[in-house]
Amino acid sequence: MENVLNEAALLAARRNLSEIGMAEIEDAMVKVTMGPEKKTRVRSDKEKKLVAYHEAGHAVVSKFLPTQDTVHQISIVPRGMAGGYTMYRPSEDKSFMSKSEMEETIVSLLGGRVAESLVLNDISTGASNDIERASKIARDMVSKYGMSDVVGSIMFGAGQEEVFLGRDLTQTKNYSEQTAAIIDAETKNIIDKAYERAENILKEHIDKLHVVAGILLEKEKIDGDEFAKVFES
Amino acid sequence: MENVLNEAALLAARRNLSEIGMAEIEDAMVKVTMGPEKKTRVRSDKEKKLVAYHEAGHAVVSKFLPTQDTVHQISIVPRGMAGGYTMYRPSEDKSFMSKSEMEETIVSLLGGRVAESLVLNDISTGASNDIERASKIARDMVSKYGMSDVVGSIMFGAGQEEVFLGRDLTQTKNYSEQTAAIIDAETKNIIDKAYERAENILKEHIDKLHVVAGILLEKEKIDGDEFAKVFES
Amino acid sequence: MENVLNEAALLAARRNLSEIGMAEIEDAMVKVTMGPEKKTRVRSDKEKKLVAYHEAGHAVVSKFLPTQDTVHQISIVPRGMAGGYTMYRPSEDKSFMSKSEMEETIVSLLGGRVAESLVLNDISTGASNDIERASKIARDMVSKYGMSDVVGSIMFGAGQEEVFLGRDLTQTKNYSEQTAAIIDAETKNIIDKAYERAENILKEHIDKLHVVAGILLEKEKIDGDEFAKVFES
Amino acid sequence: MENVLNEAALLAARRNLSEIGMAEIEDAMVKVTMGPEKKTRVRSDKEKKLVAYHEAGHAVVSKFLPTQDTVHQISIVPRGMAGGYTMYRPSEDKSFMSKSEMEETIVSLLGGRVAESLVLNDISTGASNDIERASKIARDMVSKYGMSDVVGSIMFGAGQEEVFLGRDLTQTKNYSEQTAAIIDAETKNIIDKAYERAENILKEHIDKLHVVAGILLEKEKIDGDEFAKVFES
Amino acid sequence: MENVLNEAALLAARRNLSEIGMAEIEDAMVKVTMGPEKKTRVRSDKEKKLVAYHEAGHAVVSKFLPTQDTVHQISIVPRGMAGGYTMYRPSEDKSFMSKSEMEETIVSLLGGRVAESLVLNDISTGASNDIERASKIARDMVSKYGMSDVVGSIMFGAGQEEVFLGRDLTQTKNYSEQTAAIIDAETKNIIDKAYERAENILKEHIDKLHVVAGILLEKEKIDGDEFAKVFES
Amino acid sequence: MENVLNEAALLAARRNLSEIGMAEIEDAMVKVTMGPEKKTRVRSDKEKKLVAYHEAGHAVVSKFLPTQDTVHQISIVPRGMAGGYTMYRPSEDKSFMSKSEMEETIVSLLGGRVAESLVLNDISTGASNDIERASKIARDMVSKYGMSDVVGSIMFGAGQEEVFLGRDLTQTKNYSEQTAAIIDAETKNIIDKAYERAENILKEHIDKLHVVAGILLEKEKIDGDEFAKVFES
Repeated sequence: MENVLNEAALLAARRNLSEIGMAEIEDAMVKVTMGPEKKTRVRSDKEKKLVAYHEAGHAVVSKFLPTQDTVHQISIVPRGMAGGYTMYRPSEDKSFMSKSEMEETIVSLLGGRVAESLVLNDISTGASNDIERASKIARDMVSKYGMSDVVGSIMFGAGQEEVFLGRDLTQTKNYSEQTAAIIDAETKNIIDKAYERAENILKEHIDKLHVVAGILLEKEKIDGDEFAKVFES
Repeated sequence: MENVLNEAALLAARRNLSEIGMAEIEDAMVKVTMGPEKKTRVRSDKEKKLVAYHEAGHAVVSKFLPTQDTVHQISIVPRGMAGGYTMYRPSEDKSFMSKSEMEETIVSLLGGRVAESLVLNDISTGASNDIERASKIARDMVSKYGMSDVVGSIMFGAGQEEVFLGRDLTQTKNYSEQTAAIIDAETKNIIDKAYERAENILKEHIDKLHVVAGILLEKEKIDGDEFAKVFES
Repeated sequence: MENVLNEAALLAARRNLSEIGMAEIEDAMVKVTMGPEKKTRVRSDKEKKLVAYHEAGHAVVSKFLPTQDTVHQISIVPRGMAGGYTMYRPSEDKSFMSKSEMEETIVSLLGGRVAESLVLNDISTGASNDIERASKIARDMVSKYGMSDVVGSIMFGAGQEEVFLGRDLTQTKNYSEQTAAIIDAETKNIIDKAYERAENILKEHIDKLHVVAGILLEKEKIDGDEFAKVFES
Repeated sequence: MENVLNEAALLAARRNLSEIGMAEIEDAMVKVTMGPEKKTRVRSDKEKKLVAYHEAGHAVVSKFLPTQDTVHQISIVPRGMAGGYTMYRPSEDKSFMSKSEMEETIVSLLGGRVAESLVLNDISTGASNDIERASKIARDMVSKYGMSDVVGSIMFGAGQEEVFLGRDLTQTKNYSEQTAAIIDAETKNIIDKAYERAENILKEHIDKLHVVAGILLEKEKIDGDEFAKVFES
Repeated sequence: MENVLNEAALLAARRNLSEIGMAEIEDAMVKVTMGPEKKTRVRSDKEKKLVAYHEAGHAVVSKFLPTQDTVHQISIVPRGMAGGYTMYRPSEDKSFMSKSEMEETIVSLLGGRVAESLVLNDISTGASNDIERASKIARDMVSKYGMSDVVGSIMFGAGQEEVFLGRDLTQTKNYSEQTAAIIDAETKNIIDKAYERAENILKEHIDKLHVVAGILLEKEKIDGDEFAKVFES
Repeated sequence: MENVLNEAALLAARRNLSEIGMAEIEDAMVKVTMGPEKKTRVRSDKEKKLVAYHEAGHAVVSKFLPTQDTVHQISIVPRGMAGGYTMYRPSEDKSFMSKSEMEETIVSLLGGRVAESLVLNDISTGASNDIERASKIARDMVSKYGMSDVVGSIMFGAGQEEVFLGRDLTQTKNYSEQTAAIIDAETKNIIDKAYERAENILKEHIDKLHVVAGILLEKEKIDGDEFAKVFES
């Protein structure tokens, strides 16, 4: 938190402002979380297009998902390890996630990969972090949160980690191969349905995807208001 | 214990009382066990409703289970990690748990999740701790306490933990995949039956569930007497 | 051993005796092995009845098993972790256990659980230690002592433990899933037959079970002579 | 980087040059990455022929793969552990790999082994590093990057490694045998198709393979321009 | 070795001998290897009979096995952990074991258990060390020495132990379940055949078994000459 | 290397030579690699015959394998752990092994076991090191070098070892049971074919085997020239 304020103060000074504004705090937060912008790296047009459609995919998909937060900013300026990012404005302070929120978060995460596949006719490693997060959410729904009807309100293999704080941990599977196969099938089922749903949204609104990706390729960033306007017309 | 007394003394002082009363001791115990109340956190109405029905689910289900303790207090004020809690008044000092007590404890634990599912038409991660505890009890019944007729009076994979005190422990499954599959099936069977039983109770007494949740949404807390009155009419 | 003598000396002093008698030594041995009696803990009538029938079950079953030692004392006074105990008078100093002795030890261990099941129509976690010991004996008979005709005079997965004294030990199963399934089936077979045998004995002598449990509920302890008299009439 | 410049400075000095040229930097880079040339080791004609066709195989195959970089230099002078090497001139700075790039990288890696098999009628351990890299890429495509339609946009078994930095790590498979078999089959499928594609390219252009291998056997090195000329005629 | 000589010197002194004879050295070797005789422990007649037939079983069986060494001494005086022992006079210094020697060593090891089973109609834990050694030899024949036609001249899962001297060792099975099942079946096959062979020998020579066991029960020890005489008549 | 020279100098001195000759260096190398000769150990005629045929088996088989090196010396004088040895004269400095070389190395390694089996009608533990090496080569061909058509140009389970230098390593199988079974079957296939080939060679040239073993039994050593002469006639 302190880092963010220091960073905001530095930005305000650099911009010749007498006080820190909301814009400085936002910019500071992005910089602290994602790393500074990397303007020097030369990027091919192909890669820029890939990132633009990937981020536009996330944003456009989440626009049509009732439980997902509003898009706050999309950027294709590289920062740290990321080629671009889509930021959301969290609507409220939440302690729980509902089953439908988790399902739609997965849809939103897969939106980037689906956009690549639909428009570029090729897919990339750029979606690996999205796939990892989506897989973890889907697996937890099945094996930890009792959200699969087939598996039931039962937890498998979790809850042992706390026993060996700071020690070598070998977490042995305490369930059968048969159960493991059912957990895998149910997890895959959640992922497959979410993929299909992302695909349906983007196919239906492919024009919006092109518009958003086009703006990103031109300006490198879109803020929440400009993004919202795309859907007003 | 000392913490509880100190806390009770502080509460009595703050309330301008000349001596510590039963109320102070109870409040102190809750605070020490669950953490202080978190009044500052803003919670959405949706989340408040979720917590209210979840806790009411636990309480109403346990009311209709012969082996379960009497409800002492229900609260939806957030404390520590918990969104709310249901406290029971333990009827006697027990060294053993019978099979029927264990089964009904599982029914009671699943009452929160069932209430969410019946009333809100969505389920949440808020039940994860309940599911974890219910799963552990069901699994122990089958693999440790010989309470499954299919498995028999046999113990699997336990009892090795004491051998390596304070050392790295890799507990290898000492039983076959076939046995593991039977243990999983029997555990799931216990959980599924308990879920059904919780569902039947709440469907039959859905009016009581609405009354209790309604009071919680209005007052945030119910004590044991007020809860009992709901069932007198 | 020294502990036992010190304890016996203390008991003799407390009882105003000029020398340590056999009674003091016996009481001292029980105290050192099982922990001191816990008179203060309030126990419900239900739990007392459970413990009385559980211990009476062990004692009555072992009375009808040729290889089992004579009952020396039964108590339902809680000591340490145990709700009660049945002590046997070992008939001779043994280096070996025969197959029939091991089988009947298992029958005797399951006698407590069977008594609960027959009389109280519910079973409890109180039998967990008995089940653990019975399971270990049965598994060793099959996988270590070559006492299963199906498995044969072969040892599986044992004998590696001594290699890594005081070090991290990960004992990998050195046999196949198929063998593991056979070992499980044979182990379960021994346990199931022993359970049935304990059940047959207690059903046939249910009157004796009620008499012994009745005395325990009244007096909390029975010595070997009083126990033997029950079977004389 | 500093090592490379030092090495380049030394080379320039040895060559009596007043300044470091591009040639010195390139030679220095190869030396730092692969180790110094080992001229002293006597190599049989058979082994020399093997290395020549192996490296020519990589180079010729990659020439016919749209996503692969241009060949910069091929050498059969032994360096460090390597019997020879093929260097590529990277066309642009990339953050991502597309599915088709990954597939063609595997084809290119297998080109060496395929050349051995086609021309020498025997295969050697010289391809082990290529096979290891190709296998890793294919497995990651399937289990990490969601690039197999059969498996789907799901990640298996990864992402746990970071948890135990600098500690003992036992990464337990968190997926079922069934999933493991599908991952293996899909990985093998990618490898087999790539092998076939490499084989088709080399069979079609076997004359070019002989020309390139012939020059290597004669001169030990080919630079990018000379290599390109082979394909102009 | 020094221990043996010291022990022999002490024995000679105790026996009022002016020099150490062969008898003192032999007695010293037994004492150093097996621990001192335990004359004080009271042993039941039943256990004495068990040990006598067990040791006689080893000795009589080995008498009819061409590759086995000559019996040197049999004793049923308890020493250390052992209830008795049969010593052999090694005929030559060997570096290798042939397949037939290994098979007959297993037959000889199982002779004790077979004798118990034939004469006492019950079997005991006294054979556990024999079973462990027999199992290890049979398993090594199959998985290490290529002595099973079904498995072939192949080694499975061994030879990795030396890699981690003095460190934590987790030896992962590097072969499939299918192979593990075949190894188990072949190992069991060797054991079963050896058991049958021991049984056939003892059934055919049951009179000799009774004679040898009878002498042991009377005198507690037999030396090699007296044992040989039993078979002369 | 220094050890070898020191040893050679000592030998030259002992032989009253003014300078170290080739003979001294060779003898020194054998001594440093295999340990000093053990002349004192008494060996039975049976064991001597076993070793002679075992070593002759290696040598005669390798004589008929195109890729195998020329025999330099055969000895049946025990050295260190080995009962005897066959040394080869490496024809050239190799960086790679071809598939056919690896196959024939396995044939040559199994030659000792095959000779025992053909001539002595029994097999021994003396082949265990040969079997271990042959198994490792065959397994690597299948799982590391892509030399099995069924498995393909894919690597399984290797390449992770370097990650944990000097730390506890638990290498988890990263492939499925199905793949493990295929790898086992292919490995066994290579071993079985090699065994058959060794058997065919020795059956066809059994007279040479007898001649070579005969010379070894008489003189204990054969050098390369004498060995070669056996095949001239």
